[in-house]
Amino acid sequence: MKKVTLGLLILFIGCGQHKTNTSVINLPSKHVIMDGLNHPWSISFLSNTEALVSEKDGNLLRINLDTKEKYIIKGFPSDLTDSIRAVHFGDNSGIFEVLIDQDEKEKPWVYLSYAAKKAGLGTTTKVIRARLENDSLYDHETLLVAEPFTKEYFHYGGGMTFGPDGKLYITIGERLFWEKDEPEIPIAQDVSDKRGKIYRINPDGTIPLDNPDFGVDAVPGLYALGIRAAQGITVQPETGKIWFSEHGTLQGDELNILKAGANYGWPNVTSGKLRSSDYTPPKIDGATFTPPTWFWHHTVAPTGLTFYTGDEFPGWKNNLLVPGLSRGSLWRFHIEVETIKSAEELFLDDRVRIRKVRQGPKGRLFILTDEDNGKLIQIKNQ
Amino acid sequence: MKKVTLGLLILFIGCGQHKTNTSVINLPSKHVIMDGLNHPWSISFLSNTEALVSEKDGNLLRINLDTKEKYIIKGFPSDLTDSIRAVHFGDNSGIFEVLIDQDEKEKPWVYLSYAAKKAGLGTTTKVIRARLENDSLYDHETLLVAEPFTKEYFHYGGGMTFGPDGKLYITIGERLFWEKDEPEIPIAQDVSDKRGKIYRINPDGTIPLDNPDFGVDAVPGLYALGIRAAQGITVQPETGKIWFSEHGTLQGDELNILKAGANYGWPNVTSGKLRSSDYTPPKIDGATFTPPTWFWHHTVAPTGLTFYTGDEFPGWKNNLLVPGLSRGSLWRFHIEVETIKSAEELFLDDRVRIRKVRQGPKGRLFILTDEDNGKLIQIKNQ
Repeated sequence: MKKVTLGLLILFIGCGQHKTNTSVINLPSKHVIMDGLNHPWSISFLSNTEALVSEKDGNLLRINLDTKEKYIIKGFPSDLTDSIRAVHFGDNSGIFEVLIDQDEKEKPWVYLSYAAKKAGLGTTTKVIRARLENDSLYDHETLLVAEPFTKEYFHYGGGMTFGPDGKLYITIGERLFWEKDEPEIPIAQDVSDKRGKIYRINPDGTIPLDNPDFGVDAVPGLYALGIRAAQGITVQPETGKIWFSEHGTLQGDELNILKAGANYGWPNVTSGKLRSSDYTPPKIDGATFTPPTWFWHHTVAPTGLTFYTGDEFPGWKNNLLVPGLSRGSLWRFHIEVETIKSAEELFLDDRVRIRKVRQGPKGRLFILTDEDNGKLIQIKNQ
Repeated sequence: MKKVTLGLLILFIGCGQHKTNTSVINLPSKHVIMDGLNHPWSISFLSNTEALVSEKDGNLLRINLDTKEKYIIKGFPSDLTDSIRAVHFGDNSGIFEVLIDQDEKEKPWVYLSYAAKKAGLGTTTKVIRARLENDSLYDHETLLVAEPFTKEYFHYGGGMTFGPDGKLYITIGERLFWEKDEPEIPIAQDVSDKRGKIYRINPDGTIPLDNPDFGVDAVPGLYALGIRAAQGITVQPETGKIWFSEHGTLQGDELNILKAGANYGWPNVTSGKLRSSDYTPPKIDGATFTPPTWFWHHTVAPTGLTFYTGDEFPGWKNNLLVPGLSRGSLWRFHIEVETIKSAEELFLDDRVRIRKVRQGPKGRLFILTDEDNGKLIQIKNQ
C-alpha cells in the first residue's frame, strides 16, 4: 500500500524533471558593506564607488564602498538639532534625505532635509542645498522651512525625490502624536499650515508656475495635502508617476500615488484607527479624499521605497520595493500601471529595522538599517 | 538642471543593461481548464489527462482535462447530506477531500471525506474508501466517523493526505461556531471527543501501533489535538513533514507543522480572538501548547495547501502554496526546514475564493475556485 501510494506521487512529480531548467532560485541574501553607521537614513551615489550617507543621529558622511573608508562632511548648518534620540524616546529628529545633483562634477549640489532647531521654539523640517567640495558644504541655500517650530519630536517627513520634470518633491509630516492635539482645522487639512503636506519646488527653491491652485491662503509650493507621516517618495520609471509611503497610527500604513492637488485625507479618513479614540475630525467642506493605492492590515512602518530596474533580479524588474521599520522586512510589489498585483514580504525573520532601500550604480541594490550600529547592506541574488 | 539630474539617473540604470539577462519575468496567470463545477473542493489525478473532482455542493466527478468532458461517479453513499448550502448560510457541509491510490490501475481505491447525515441527529465528518470501476464506487469501507452527529453546520475539517509513511492523515474540525457552546472540557481539548483532532490511520482504517499515547480514554487513531477548523493538509517533500492550515475566528488563521501528540491549543490559545468575547476556556492541567509556524494578522481563510515541486516556476521550487477563501489570493511561502523566510501574496485583486491548490502530472499547477460556477484553473508561467 505504502509503496504504491508514494510511487504514484513520484511518477507525477518526475514527469517534469527532464526539463533543462531545474535550478532552484534562492532567496536574496544580505551582504554587509559597512557597519558602524549611526541610524543611517538615506544614501545617494557620487560615483560607482562613492556615496553620501545621512545618519539620522549622526553626520553626513562620504563613504567608499570598496575601501570602507568614511569621512564626515563639514559645513553642516548649525541649526541641525542635536541628536536627542536618547533623551526623547521615539524621537524622529535628525538628518533625513540626501540627494545629489552633479551638474558640476567636482562640486555637486547636495540636497538635504533635516530637523532644524530654533532656540526657545523647538524644531521643524528644513530643506537646504549646498555645494560639496573637498568634503565641505558651502553656498548654502534654504529651500523650505516647514514652520512652525514646535516642541513635538515626531513625524518630520523629510522624504525627497526629483521628479521626471526636474522638480524637487518633498514630504512634510504633520508633527503631532495625538489627534486630540489638532487645531480646529486639522493641520494636514489646513492649506495655510506648512505641515502635513507634499511640496513641489524648483531645485533653487522657487515655486513652479504650474503647481495646483489651493487658493490665496495656501502655503507656497503646496502640491498635495492630508499627509500624516510620509518618509518614502520615489519615481516609478515606467510611468513617471511618483509613489510615496505613509505611516499610519494603529494600522493605516499606506502606499499612495502622488497626484497634483490631491487630498490624502488625514485625519478625516484613514485605513487605520485614530490614536485618540475620542477625537472626531471636523467635516471639511468640499473635500474629496484620495484613497491609498495599498494599505496593510498590520503595522509595517513603510519608509524609503524605490523601484527596482536592475538586472540581478529579473523577476523584480520594475517592482516597487518598500522597507519596513516595524517588522524589519522588505516588501516587493509587482505593479501593472497603478494596480498592485502581488506583494512579497522578504527577510521575514530578520527583525531589523530597515530605513531605506535604494538602487545604486550598476543596478546594485542597497538597504540601510536603523540601528545604533547601523549598516549599509547590499542585497544579492545568491 | 533637469537634464543633468536625469542624466545621472540614466547613467546608473544603464550600467547594468549590457547584461544578457534583461527579460522581465511576468506574474503567473490563470487559464480556465473547466468551469461549471459546483463549489469544487478537491482534485486528484487518475492519469495525465483524467482526474477526480469532488464538488462540495454537488457530485464526485471524473473529468477529462483535454476534452473537458465530465462524468458523475455513481455509488456515492446515501448518507451524504443533501446540499443545503442555500438553506443554511455559511454551511460547510458537502463532499470534501478525494484521494486516489492506484494499487490496481483499473479499479483504484478512492478515499473520500464528506458530511454524512444520520436521521434525527444531524451530520458529521465521515471518511470512506471504495473501489472505482466504470465510474462507480463499490466495496465501500468506512474508515472514520467523527461522532457525535450534531445540528451544527460548521468546521467539518475533512482534509486528508497520505504521509511518507503510507498512513492516512485526516483533519476533523470541532464543529462549533461560538465558543460559549463549548462543554466543560472544550471539545478540541477532550481526548475522548472525536472532534477538533487530527488522525493517523492505516489506509484500511485500522489503527497504527506506533501512534502517540493519549491515555485509555482517547479516541482511536488520535494523533494531535487542539484543532478548530483545519482543511488543508499536505506533505513537505524535502523533509517528509506534514503541514496543515487552520481557520481562525477573528484573525487567528494559521499554518502548523504536524507533530505526533501535539496540542495546537484551541480554544485555550489562539493567534486571533475568540468569537464569544465573554468565554474563558478552563485551565487544561498539564497541557503544553504548540505555537503555529505562521499566523496572519488578518483573515485569509487558508485551505487546501500544497508544496510546489514542478519546473515551470523555478523560483517556487519546494515553496508552500496556500490558497485563501477570504481574500481569494494565493500565498507562496519560501521555507527553510521549518522556518518561513518569505511570503508572497499573488492574484491580489482577483477576489475569487480559492479552495484548493494542487500539483498535477507533469508539474502542472491547478487551483479550484469555490463558486456556484466553480472553475478548475491552471496557473501558468506566462
